[in-house]
Amino acid sequence: MNPTTINPAPPSEIPAAPARCSIAALRKFCMAALAATGVSQRDAEVAADVLVTTDAWGVFTHGTKSLAGYLRRLKGGGLRATAQPTIVSERPGWAVVDGQSALGMIPSVMAMDLAIAKAQTQGIAYVGVRNSCHFGAAGYYAWLAARAGLIGIAMANDIPSVTAPGARGKITGSNPIAYAVPAGRHPPMMLDMAISTVAGGKVYAARTLGQPIPDNWIVDGDGRPTRDPSVFPQAGALQPFAGHKGYGLALLIESLSGILTGGAVSRGIGSWMQGDPTQPTLHAAAFLAIDTALVMPAAEFAQRVDAFIDEIHAAPKADGAERIFVPGEKEWDHYKRATAAGIDLPADVVASLREAAGLAGIEFLSSF
Amino acid sequence: MNPTTINPAPPSEIPAAPARCSIAALRKFCMAALAATGVSQRDAEVAADVLVTTDAWGVFTHGTKSLAGYLRRLKGGGLRATAQPTIVSERPGWAVVDGQSALGMIPSVMAMDLAIAKAQTQGIAYVGVRNSCHFGAAGYYAWLAARAGLIGIAMANDIPSVTAPGARGKITGSNPIAYAVPAGRHPPMMLDMAISTVAGGKVYAARTLGQPIPDNWIVDGDGRPTRDPSVFPQAGALQPFAGHKGYGLALLIESLSGILTGGAVSRGIGSWMQGDPTQPTLHAAAFLAIDTALVMPAAEFAQRVDAFIDEIHAAPKADGAERIFVPGEKEWDHYKRATAAGIDLPADVVASLREAAGLAGIEFLSSF
Repeated sequence: MNPTTINPAPPSEIPAAPARCSIAALRKFCMAALAATGVSQRDAEVAADVLVTTDAWGVFTHGTKSLAGYLRRLKGGGLRATAQPTIVSERPGWAVVDGQSALGMIPSVMAMDLAIAKAQTQGIAYVGVRNSCHFGAAGYYAWLAARAGLIGIAMANDIPSVTAPGARGKITGSNPIAYAVPAGRHPPMMLDMAISTVAGGKVYAARTLGQPIPDNWIVDGDGRPTRDPSVFPQAGALQPFAGHKGYGLALLIESLSGILTGGAVSRGIGSWMQGDPTQPTLHAAAFLAIDTALVMPAAEFAQRVDAFIDEIHAAPKADGAERIFVPGEKEWDHYKRATAAGIDLPADVVASLREAAGLAGIEFLSSF
Repeated sequence: MNPTTINPAPPSEIPAAPARCSIAALRKFCMAALAATGVSQRDAEVAADVLVTTDAWGVFTHGTKSLAGYLRRLKGGGLRATAQPTIVSERPGWAVVDGQSALGMIPSVMAMDLAIAKAQTQGIAYVGVRNSCHFGAAGYYAWLAARAGLIGIAMANDIPSVTAPGARGKITGSNPIAYAVPAGRHPPMMLDMAISTVAGGKVYAARTLGQPIPDNWIVDGDGRPTRDPSVFPQAGALQPFAGHKGYGLALLIESLSGILTGGAVSRGIGSWMQGDPTQPTLHAAAFLAIDTALVMPAAEFAQRVDAFIDEIHAAPKADGAERIFVPGEKEWDHYKRATAAGIDLPADVVASLREAAGLAGIEFLSSF
């Protein structure tokens, strides 16, 4: 079992030569790159915080590494730099936001902020988003709620990449879902996961290394589990985790994201990485916030979460294990180190940031 | 991959000699048995519908097979036959119910009914339950919402039986979570799953047959994956599905059930099967309902779900597969057959119902 959360690429997969930079410099660089493509200062700040916080957690697959891809879409027009997401429909306990093809982080932060405000008066709130794009790490939005003292849940649909039991090809997206639960002495519990057994990146890495993979990662072109990573992604598909469980969860996420919001569903979504950069991708997402002070003061809720975490930490360890991590703990450990000493950016992120600088026509990170 | 939902015991595990009975007779029998231990006619009806509907879905592990266990607790006093669950705290979008140690189905149905009513005015609602007991199949409550045209989510905590990455023993319950999404032409999509890779019953079955098990089902007394089913449950623990993903989901379910409601958490819960029948088990649960008519008429939502299901059904099949099932479809197929021709009760259920008749001092099922 792999105790890692938020699907970080294991260190073994990351090429050598990381570059260390401060959180502040990385944020400044991202903001400058976004501003250079026409994004407002305020929106650039919002998006940069999502990406840099994700890197600070050590979740390098979903942080600033994506910036170059977003810039390509901003330049292509598929992402509209000056779009203003709008509230389509709203009641005290819910809302639906139209992302207007803005950078995915903009309507997503707007939606979770709205869900938080509504939950603070209603106890619980749902805000759905349609016509958005890739929003980065779902965990960031869940954490926005936990930072405000609420339980947060965030999820999104995506292009089909994962098969279903009995199917031959791609049926659902890897549809991420994340939650965050605020604690007291401890950092929030926080989990961000896709419904596939592993991310496609892990399959590519095995292919590059010429290594066989476990038989629950992908299926081949005939829908049969295979240990050969070379068939993906041209044929075959990722496997949902735990078979019908991951598949079933994917359909709930699609129901709350694409279907309930009136947004695009499944094959209606475009690839933010490979798709035509002049076209919107139409991703949809859903955000839930729940007030923790329903029957007891928030401080008591936090104490109860702390006590539960303490109980888990104190439990007997497996042979060879030194700690039992609660979800998010590794990310918060990484975050602390990043805040104190800077972020060690893996080489693939550095390469991608270099590309971003080129796309934006700005100096590279090292100048910030 | 196993496309089965709601963890039914695979037919191969069920001893021979099933008995066929009508849904009406089974319901009548359950009601008589509950009434004989002092449960009101109304509560007996509610509980019988939960158990018999679950059998009609073919989910025999969580249906009337549990009746004998509930009767033992009703006779022992750990379940209070005449308890009246109360609303502890309530606002337009949420409530917390104290189960008062009533049969788990009573506060659970009350809670989901309340969540449905609140969601119909608020868009979304949360109702938590504390001081409850084993509530049967989580899917039943999710379905109550779907039957009323809403999206339903139900979950509960349970005694520790599942390990966590890095741990040596049992850390979380197998904490079930279920959802149901209403459709139009199609029956509701419906998934009911535990956060363990498999239910303990599958490990026992392998032990009985002397068969090795896959290495992701349980860990041994040292916290190491093992293929030997004989160590469980005396030592070791079930494994969470997909490692940190199942474990992480367990903690969210515990947060929304035990922690948020002020109820019992983890080791504070008693075993409804093996525990002292004179003591309450203190299970907690959480119910969410979401109106589907947030941005479009409910009929349009249903059409969108239908279209998505049609798309999945029409997708290419894996070698050897005839259909791609959406979650709940197998259960609804079984339900149709049960309604038309009766339920084929497996021998272990028949044996348990015979025990229930003895405990209640009533005639056996065949007389109903």
